[in-house]
Amino acid sequence: MAKKAAAAANASNVTKSVKERDTRTMSRIVDLADSVASKALAGREPKVAIPLRTKSNTIWNRKRGMLEMGDAAAERELFNLNQAKQFMQTCLHANSIKELIEAEKTLSLRGMFYKGLHTVQGTKEKTFADQDESDGILEDLEVSLGSLREELHIFAKKKGTMIGNITIVDTGDEIDCRRMGSGGYAIPSIVEPDVIQFKKCDAKFVLHVEKDTVWGRFNEDKFWQKHNCILTEGGGQPSRGVRRLLQRLNNELGLPIYCLLDCDPWGHYIFSVIKQGSISLAFESNRLAIPDAKFIGIRSKDYTACDLSDDVKVEMNDTDIKRAKEIAAYPWFLGHKGWQAEIDLMLRNGFKMEVESLITKDISYVTEEYVPQRLKAKDWLV
Amino acid sequence: MAKKAAAAANASNVTKSVKERDTRTMSRIVDLADSVASKALAGREPKVAIPLRTKSNTIWNRKRGMLEMGDAAAERELFNLNQAKQFMQTCLHANSIKELIEAEKTLSLRGMFYKGLHTVQGTKEKTFADQDESDGILEDLEVSLGSLREELHIFAKKKGTMIGNITIVDTGDEIDCRRMGSGGYAIPSIVEPDVIQFKKCDAKFVLHVEKDTVWGRFNEDKFWQKHNCILTEGGGQPSRGVRRLLQRLNNELGLPIYCLLDCDPWGHYIFSVIKQGSISLAFESNRLAIPDAKFIGIRSKDYTACDLSDDVKVEMNDTDIKRAKEIAAYPWFLGHKGWQAEIDLMLRNGFKMEVESLITKDISYVTEEYVPQRLKAKDWLV
Repeated sequence: MAKKAAAAANASNVTKSVKERDTRTMSRIVDLADSVASKALAGREPKVAIPLRTKSNTIWNRKRGMLEMGDAAAERELFNLNQAKQFMQTCLHANSIKELIEAEKTLSLRGMFYKGLHTVQGTKEKTFADQDESDGILEDLEVSLGSLREELHIFAKKKGTMIGNITIVDTGDEIDCRRMGSGGYAIPSIVEPDVIQFKKCDAKFVLHVEKDTVWGRFNEDKFWQKHNCILTEGGGQPSRGVRRLLQRLNNELGLPIYCLLDCDPWGHYIFSVIKQGSISLAFESNRLAIPDAKFIGIRSKDYTACDLSDDVKVEMNDTDIKRAKEIAAYPWFLGHKGWQAEIDLMLRNGFKMEVESLITKDISYVTEEYVPQRLKAKDWLV
Repeated sequence: MAKKAAAAANASNVTKSVKERDTRTMSRIVDLADSVASKALAGREPKVAIPLRTKSNTIWNRKRGMLEMGDAAAERELFNLNQAKQFMQTCLHANSIKELIEAEKTLSLRGMFYKGLHTVQGTKEKTFADQDESDGILEDLEVSLGSLREELHIFAKKKGTMIGNITIVDTGDEIDCRRMGSGGYAIPSIVEPDVIQFKKCDAKFVLHVEKDTVWGRFNEDKFWQKHNCILTEGGGQPSRGVRRLLQRLNNELGLPIYCLLDCDPWGHYIFSVIKQGSISLAFESNRLAIPDAKFIGIRSKDYTACDLSDDVKVEMNDTDIKRAKEIAAYPWFLGHKGWQAEIDLMLRNGFKMEVESLITKDISYVTEEYVPQRLKAKDWLV
């Protein structure tokens, strides 16, 4: 009975926080509309300031260990032939979002494109040429309203799965991630606290792996039971949903995040995004970046350290080499001796290595020896 | 207590059936090895017969409503310069599978590639040039052993999610798909009866949608609660795991499978594969094809029937037109008036339509009107 009452109280708290959040988002949309309307009524040109999501407006905050968006913004004006379309697209999407919030529904990015799509009366001009145009406007709205996509009731393609020593509540359903079989819990696109609450967590850390097939190996070997952790995978470059969930597990529950990624520029880039955030989503770093994340492998040294055979070598091509050098020159890797040595050795090796290649040692080498040894020796890159 | 005893009995039945299956697979591998060894010892050339997975060896079984593999097979000989490598690759993988079964472990396709990869002693020749070569040999082994990939302990990339009025047991964990929040249960690659058992199913049908974003719309609108069904998505072309799960739901629980796919050649092809099977996996049709599956939409007629605006039209390009004509000429569509009319109207319309485009009517039009009306009117293509 006490349990039921607690659940009801929790549910009502969640409902309350959703309402507060929606009220806040709504008032921002109304403010935007008001500013446009008041300028128009006063005979002045309606315009909207859109913060710039460019490399030049991205700042590396060394102290906080994350990328941040600078102050530069561009005006989007109605009476400017180059900007009028985007101005109207912005208003159109802002209106759709208002409708979504009122209807208490969410919509996919593709759905938003169709929702905003129509032929402008008296012309043959469509409101949006394609979904890319629509997606861009939605990101503009995120930054200019200071509201996340999730707060705008918009979701994206779902990616990634989770299993392990944690119970969560997802839209009111209690999900015991200790009993999710071989499939696991599919991580949704929106994982904000009003959708997902952490209930009972015994896990001491999170092991995040790049690919679901590697995740399958760890799950089958019950790694998360033996090592008391949570096991996640992001299907390659993790989605915002997966990154946000990891960040919340790190931030709210204090769990260290260990990343098991390939030894190649792509794996290094995935880690960079998990840790510092990305340029295009720098305005989201507060919510997505995990400066505390750790890269547990695969490492360039493993070829000799783990006594691997030549079969694990995947030759680096020119694109790989160029990309590796670019990543080494990222400000956050530039001052980091460990990462400079790591990338330097990879370049000198001249080959990449995949997590799966550890199978050449033994099927369960990665779950029974590699990761446990690295964790024990605290041997990782930060 | 009775419940516990039943669960234990069930678990022991599952263990028993796994053991029987593994024993069966193992004896087939041993037979293969024995036949090679006995030929070699008798001074004859070792060879293996591999059934042909080609279009010419694929038969459309009209009566059963599925594609089947014919009897044609090719000999793979050791003393044939063109075949020696493949012969040895086949033996190599057969040996790896034996090891997997003995270790009671599964491995991904990529993992199998690495497991079999080594440099042939005294040469610079690798056993496999790339994963494609390895995957092909594994399919050869499936057909020649008459054992499914899943029975060979090999899994693939995971795709797709499920939610709805069913409780399943996955590797011993009871999963109530009625309480899976916004994320859902991630469908694993291997869904054979020894991994997944159906426990309590109240659902009357399965609605399978193409994309996870559409699935999100149906889940948010609690369609599966209102209409007492199971809701699945396959992330585009469904994986073998998703197809097999649908087939088992259809076969073992007698649930009709309604497919909500785009009105384009890709959507039609997805349906064709779900229903009749595919050429490359014709040897699997018994286990994967669902001749009873129904295509509930989107239909070419919907543009006028649902009074849609021009915004839903996505122009067909030359590739689309060519592909549509190819699909119309499939033997199983050729004799089907409904499908001929459907594809013909799409070609005359000159445009494709996506499920998501129904949002131009209303956010929840697809969940509240479109699908319920089609189900009620039994308006679908078989």
